[in-house]
Amino acid sequence: MNAAVVPGLPEIRAGEDLAGLIAEQVELRPEDVVCVASTAVSKAEGRAADLDAFPPGPRATELADRLSALTGEEKDPRFAQAVLEESTELLIESPFLLTEARPGHVTVNAGIDRSNVPDADVLLLPERPMASARRLADRLGTRVVITDTSGRPFRHGQRGVAIGWAGLPAARDWRGEPDREGRELSVTMEAVVDELAGTANLLGGEGAEGTPVVLIRDWTFGELAGDDELFRAVETDFVRQALRQWSYEDGGERA
Amino acid sequence: MNAAVVPGLPEIRAGEDLAGLIAEQVELRPEDVVCVASTAVSKAEGRAADLDAFPPGPRATELADRLSALTGEEKDPRFAQAVLEESTELLIESPFLLTEARPGHVTVNAGIDRSNVPDADVLLLPERPMASARRLADRLGTRVVITDTSGRPFRHGQRGVAIGWAGLPAARDWRGEPDREGRELSVTMEAVVDELAGTANLLGGEGAEGTPVVLIRDWTFGELAGDDELFRAVETDFVRQALRQWSYEDGGERA
Repeated sequence: MNAAVVPGLPEIRAGEDLAGLIAEQVELRPEDVVCVASTAVSKAEGRAADLDAFPPGPRATELADRLSALTGEEKDPRFAQAVLEESTELLIESPFLLTEARPGHVTVNAGIDRSNVPDADVLLLPERPMASARRLADRLGTRVVITDTSGRPFRHGQRGVAIGWAGLPAARDWRGEPDREGRELSVTMEAVVDELAGTANLLGGEGAEGTPVVLIRDWTFGELAGDDELFRAVETDFVRQALRQWSYEDGGERA
Repeated sequence: MNAAVVPGLPEIRAGEDLAGLIAEQVELRPEDVVCVASTAVSKAEGRAADLDAFPPGPRATELADRLSALTGEEKDPRFAQAVLEESTELLIESPFLLTEARPGHVTVNAGIDRSNVPDADVLLLPERPMASARRLADRLGTRVVITDTSGRPFRHGQRGVAIGWAGLPAARDWRGEPDREGRELSVTMEAVVDELAGTANLLGGEGAEGTPVVLIRDWTFGELAGDDELFRAVETDFVRQALRQWSYEDGGERA
């Protein structure tokens, strides 16, 4: 397996042909996995926004006030409003906003980015990352993973994750595969799109270099069955169930 | 960046010189990252065990009885005893055992593997994966990451994670790095050892092929500062706090 940054991409502007820009830089093969940072997709799709577009309602004002009091930093209620509009559930309200973002995955602040946005205050996630991945894959004739970075429970730090993919399943299904001794494996579903996103993040990073596209070559999904479910529903996610009952302020049950 | 399985390794047995076996197969360079599956390290360190070595106490019997009743499958109280002995905290007791394993990370069943263990019932994690990584790195003259696979909240499936590392820090510290516009980045710590473990898992897998070692070449940590904290303490982990108050049976507070 080989992974390399696609060099020479300009700063992406709204309406720009992202697939065309990528294809200009590198000769692609059908088995390639093109990993594209969601920030680049969002920029091309015109998802940069100013905070004035999010006049805060009472709920956003209340959230921002609470976070300001808690952290001692002034929090912008317009930003809280943007987070509310871009999410379908608020899992933690303080000391930060943990959300289910509209595309279906759990992330802080609905994945809204305040860095790396020229001429605007914030960058929202692509509206439908799966559809964005499909369009890019069709244009490029390759497999595509749209990546974001995300923190996680239990472990410090952020790592690359997939929020959209096309041309390959999200996971390899190892169920029923025997080990060397003929026993069943304990690993059942390997979330390969997240592992590919992490690989891309090792090279692209989030820095000033502006390297949002990483090409992964000579990697094969293999002969296993695929599975396309990547985001847990609350019914199978005990952590989400537990968080619904928890609040930071009383360290106990939610009112 | 290039990643490839180290071919030709035999089934690893207790007491075997794992570093020697790896070095026989490939000419290593100091900047290489050698990713070794924890199963291989455990086998070499003699961590395979029979369940009879874990006579169950009353707590293990109670846990196994509860899980048996809940899942309708016979659960072995000796396995529950092994999980208790190999963990420092039980975060979820049902419908499965979520633990802080002795090395400090959160994982199901204290990371005990029931597959891929010849001539024994179970394979325990290495006792001190950081020390194991250090020893391997010293012998190989490379950087080393000891990998495991793990599920996670919010997202389906397992992916590779690091449980030990040597020769590089766990994370790249992006704090204070400016973006293209001179603003600070929102990503702060990138858990590169987890991303490297995920990359290795894309190639090694957990299957019958027996490919526990992956060599990552031509990847550079870069000029950023490093950070070596990978496992969250409960004080900074709201999910762990919430789980302490939750139980599956009443979907509510723990007794």
